[in-house]
Amino acid sequence: MSPNEMVPRVRPEALKRFCEGVFQTLGVSQQDAQITTDVLVAADLRGIDSHGVARLRRYVTALREGMSVARPNERTVMETPTTALIDAGAGLGQPASYRAMHKAIDKAQEVGAGFVAVRNSNHYGIAGYYAMMALEHDCIGISMTNASLNVPPTFGRLPMLGTNPIAVAVPAGSERPFVLDMATSVVPRGKLEVYKRLERPLPIGWAINEDGSPMTDSARVVGSTSKKADWRLLPLGGAGELLGGHKGYGLALLVEVLCAVLSGAAYADLVYPETPSGKPLPSQIGHFFGAWRIGSFRPIAEFKTSMDDLLGRLKNTPRTEGQPRIYVHGEKEYEQAERRAVKGIPLGSKVVADLKSIAQELGVAYDL
Amino acid sequence: MSPNEMVPRVRPEALKRFCEGVFQTLGVSQQDAQITTDVLVAADLRGIDSHGVARLRRYVTALREGMSVARPNERTVMETPTTALIDAGAGLGQPASYRAMHKAIDKAQEVGAGFVAVRNSNHYGIAGYYAMMALEHDCIGISMTNASLNVPPTFGRLPMLGTNPIAVAVPAGSERPFVLDMATSVVPRGKLEVYKRLERPLPIGWAINEDGSPMTDSARVVGSTSKKADWRLLPLGGAGELLGGHKGYGLALLVEVLCAVLSGAAYADLVYPETPSGKPLPSQIGHFFGAWRIGSFRPIAEFKTSMDDLLGRLKNTPRTEGQPRIYVHGEKEYEQAERRAVKGIPLGSKVVADLKSIAQELGVAYDL
Repeated sequence: MSPNEMVPRVRPEALKRFCEGVFQTLGVSQQDAQITTDVLVAADLRGIDSHGVARLRRYVTALREGMSVARPNERTVMETPTTALIDAGAGLGQPASYRAMHKAIDKAQEVGAGFVAVRNSNHYGIAGYYAMMALEHDCIGISMTNASLNVPPTFGRLPMLGTNPIAVAVPAGSERPFVLDMATSVVPRGKLEVYKRLERPLPIGWAINEDGSPMTDSARVVGSTSKKADWRLLPLGGAGELLGGHKGYGLALLVEVLCAVLSGAAYADLVYPETPSGKPLPSQIGHFFGAWRIGSFRPIAEFKTSMDDLLGRLKNTPRTEGQPRIYVHGEKEYEQAERRAVKGIPLGSKVVADLKSIAQELGVAYDL
Repeated sequence: MSPNEMVPRVRPEALKRFCEGVFQTLGVSQQDAQITTDVLVAADLRGIDSHGVARLRRYVTALREGMSVARPNERTVMETPTTALIDAGAGLGQPASYRAMHKAIDKAQEVGAGFVAVRNSNHYGIAGYYAMMALEHDCIGISMTNASLNVPPTFGRLPMLGTNPIAVAVPAGSERPFVLDMATSVVPRGKLEVYKRLERPLPIGWAINEDGSPMTDSARVVGSTSKKADWRLLPLGGAGELLGGHKGYGLALLVEVLCAVLSGAAYADLVYPETPSGKPLPSQIGHFFGAWRIGSFRPIAEFKTSMDDLLGRLKNTPRTEGQPRIYVHGEKEYEQAERRAVKGIPLGSKVVADLKSIAQELGVAYDL
């Protein structure tokens, strides 16, 4: 029996039913519980386990302790034919983001392009989920968020930016859509936790100590931010400027500007504020969503034919020795989602124990 | 006398007069000659010498041999309130791009956001020039282009994408604007030429041989593309996936999609086509421009105050030992431009010789 077969697999539908029950028990509306759950389970299906139900505890704690408001006063602050600004009322990040992205898509359908910034929000799950909402509307979708402090600027000692992901989804014809969903750091923080779980040292080039020296001890990775820790994540391109670390820093700063400065959310070291006694407050982070209607530039059929041809050229170009395959972004995740939809989602024992304990605390049936 | 003082410095105005004369002699209209010159000299002023008048020869050759059309039939193919598609008629990339960016800004001023794709164009100079056009209109500007083949996809042997730059410009208040202008490869190709000129080996992590091994011999860097050479530029994040090379590849692919697939331009190995006998044809590359009116999200004064605060926090955060300064993107170039506007632009002897030879060939006065 391989180690994989020993991990229990659960049906996505059962997992969704459970999570929806948890959120509703905590006072979240049925609709918002469904949206939030769908984003979480989509991460598990796509193989981004660090952003799936393994994080349910974090959302439960946030709702219980008031960092996320179960029934927020979500409102549109400003609106033009192409743009909108939404205040999420410190609610869960997912429902506000889902509606913001829908608004961006609606605007794109009507006038060609739509962009919606969100402020006063919270962690929104995987960036790619919202970008991918554009696909069925024959739009290109984008999604970004600022996040808890983990990345110093080039030459800085302290984390001043988050892993600030950028996601873009582009439809194709017979090929799968191109879905880029990337942290602007070398790796997302979740990847460090995977290495910690496996008790493996971190590769040099992922994280540094406060003095800038390589940090390889995965056992030291705790919590969701390095704000109070003495290690930091490196921006894409690594330390210094020699291999382009200032570019990763620049991309993270761009995300910070579009998500937080444009929306009036908290930025840099102002995110995830606390009371003087150290009690966490709503994170006050922001997001940025956008959609372009492809048909407003070029007939959609022509576009999809070109996309198929471009992606095919990349996938079929000669490979360096020993490499079995050249990927296009999103492929790995689509293939994983197809497998897991059939075989179920594997949940580690720690995650199962955590879900069971949440079920018990809230009096929700655990029937996975 | 330091080596720097030995390099002749020329006044930007004189350099502009000379370049405008060259372009007009080759049949380019006065307006288009002015625009193209302004983009070139802006690169020299900002210290991006690889994209300045050092490339004048390339444009001269393109105009003489028909790869760039002096009086192109530039036309708007499709237009909506927020978007447009322009066919540049195989003209110089700069004038079409200047007008496309203006159209994007006009649309942003009217409806909140504007995006213009350009096809059938040519090399457009520095990406940042167009993004920065948005600044005086209190807009955020973006600019991208696809380019000649230099970068393989992760695990690929052949270059299939260009260095595909992304530029974004964001106004601030008392701080200088945030101007990110980055190739999506670790370094742009021009940086390899700088090392060649200095007869220095290339740092490991910039370029690879066809078999994927590190390429450090700068003497082997010739021409503007590695299509016919046996070395390639690495995407931001480097070789393989360990340090995020697939992210740089993904960003380059995103630029390819927005600039070429959305516009109907040439993409991947279809760019810079040749006749069967090897004569170069118009490059058929494309660009993508955009602008968001900041005021459609948030009052501009509030936005600028937040930008100043964010940029100040980054610049003043504690530094790792021995580092004199933390930069925000664009600062180095603004400072360089201020120095060079006063002291003049230093031109290497090879560039001066090249300009003189162009002057002689075309019968244009060389009075620098």
